Amino acid sequence: MTPASENGMSVVALAGGVGGARLVDGLDRVLPPGSLTAVVNTGDDFEHWGLHISPDLDTVMYTLAGLSPEDRGWGIDGDTFEVLREARRRGVDDWFRLGDRDLVTHLFRTHALALGESLTQATAELCKVLGVERPILPMSDAPCPTSILTKSGEELAFQEWLVKERAAPPVSRARHGGNGETTQSVLDALNVADLVVICPSNPYVSIDPILRLTGVSEALGRTPTVAVSPILNGKAVKGPLATMISEIGGRPPSAEAVAIHYKGLLDGFAVQHGDSFRALYPTLETNILIQTREDRIRLAHELIEFARSLR
Amino acid sequence: MTPASENGMSVVALAGGVGGARLVDGLDRVLPPGSLTAVVNTGDDFEHWGLHISPDLDTVMYTLAGLSPEDRGWGIDGDTFEVLREARRRGVDDWFRLGDRDLVTHLFRTHALALGESLTQATAELCKVLGVERPILPMSDAPCPTSILTKSGEELAFQEWLVKERAAPPVSRARHGGNGETTQSVLDALNVADLVVICPSNPYVSIDPILRLTGVSEALGRTPTVAVSPILNGKAVKGPLATMISEIGGRPPSAEAVAIHYKGLLDGFAVQHGDSFRALYPTLETNILIQTREDRIRLAHELIEFARSLR
Repeated sequence: MTPASENGMSVVALAGGVGGARLVDGLDRVLPPGSLTAVVNTGDDFEHWGLHISPDLDTVMYTLAGLSPEDRGWGIDGDTFEVLREARRRGVDDWFRLGDRDLVTHLFRTHALALGESLTQATAELCKVLGVERPILPMSDAPCPTSILTKSGEELAFQEWLVKERAAPPVSRARHGGNGETTQSVLDALNVADLVVICPSNPYVSIDPILRLTGVSEALGRTPTVAVSPILNGKAVKGPLATMISEIGGRPPSAEAVAIHYKGLLDGFAVQHGDSFRALYPTLETNILIQTREDRIRLAHELIEFARSLR
Repeated sequence: MTPASENGMSVVALAGGVGGARLVDGLDRVLPPGSLTAVVNTGDDFEHWGLHISPDLDTVMYTLAGLSPEDRGWGIDGDTFEVLREARRRGVDDWFRLGDRDLVTHLFRTHALALGESLTQATAELCKVLGVERPILPMSDAPCPTSILTKSGEELAFQEWLVKERAAPPVSRARHGGNGETTQSVLDALNVADLVVICPSNPYVSIDPILRLTGVSEALGRTPTVAVSPILNGKAVKGPLATMISEIGGRPPSAEAVAIHYKGLLDGFAVQHGDSFRALYPTLETNILIQTREDRIRLAHELIEFARSLR
């Protein structure tokens, strides 16, 4: 890591949904303007009611805009569901809970894409309107659909597996579609980064889709990279990760299992108190539960200090 | 007109927005199943927020479904406006008032069209879900945009002129775009019709767009045709028609001015008490104000009787 002051440090955070969004929010509040770029998974993107929905981009954007609910990992706090109610009345597919305010995001993203804008441009415009100043970059402008291959041999689009099937069908593996290309904006951000933070998101379906894009792992090889464990005391804070580690990784869910998954990529790893293990690189043992804004800011500070200690 | 009982009569109603929808509603309640087809103007169709909006189709559909408000000519009674409120918050173009329940119609029409369905098919599906059993046919499956040429030389898309500009810019004429083609469903309905009813809609921007499509005027020439005046005592019940008659037709607004506009097409004309004039065909002088359902049914009965008297 280049000897940079906290002020001069360029950080790229790789993020998926809620956990990722919360750490990005902490970093956003700790790092000075111009120094943080969030690169967000779009493998969950899907089309519903003819709308282009980017669940992880929205979670990160809403979290940074202060619009996310405390008690659930999606949508806008205090949103209403009048459109969804009418869709139900008409017998329309209603498994994906679209709020009325949230819908405006999808309508305008879909419209912008139809007019020929890139997802990167559309995301920037949505962020601007919501007052989010740090760049949030989709990992790709091309479709990269993640699907879940189940043990029973089915292939389900990720959101269908997660939301419609409530993550119940046992997973054999995740499949990552698309042309494998990231964007020039992402490569540019990685090229100048002094630090890459892999946020506490699901490695299989939130981070792997980013890592596999051409040029990303290579950039991580050149740049100090720290991860925050998405597993605490053997459990995931949210979502199906613990079960997926057993099903895909074939081992009990633990911070160490995540570290093994990221083998060769990390220069440091932050884990929950009591979750440390013998690693080839330094680990930061702290409280990595970041539900509140205070905890997000605290962990972001600790991570930056930790990363600085790695040079 | 073929000597058919009211039960056996095939009726095609040409309709635009509110006035047309109300007469179609009356005819719908008076005529037996299978005998009424509404052919509806789509010249007002436009794209907004990336959605395909068909104002007249929706007004007819909502009216037949019993969903239209009594006090305004658009949307669904009791609808909420959460999505519109959020769009406003984000500084998005909000001149077209889209309700939350109404939005479901536009979302699903847009999606169906994107999947390659015709507007005729999409309309049939929307109607089915809302329990509307009589066929409502768009006048065309192809775009036929009506625009308004203003006296100051501007050309405005119809909804922009009507809604955004509140019909204020003086009109030089209406321009009808598109390839001029109707659909086979419309031609089939006209071919078996015993009676065509031109509903009390705006002749320039609701009925003319239908009449100019290839084969429609010819079919009217073969079939008894009656119109209901959209002007009562020199005024339009709703909308900008009275002013348009002065501006485009160059005469004071009156039932007679409408009759002159439809010259050569009519076999009978229904006008408000006191509005009769010297015509080359029979006129029915009655109460043509059809705000209430009772009045719609009464006028529909009277029209059928009147049409039967014409043979």
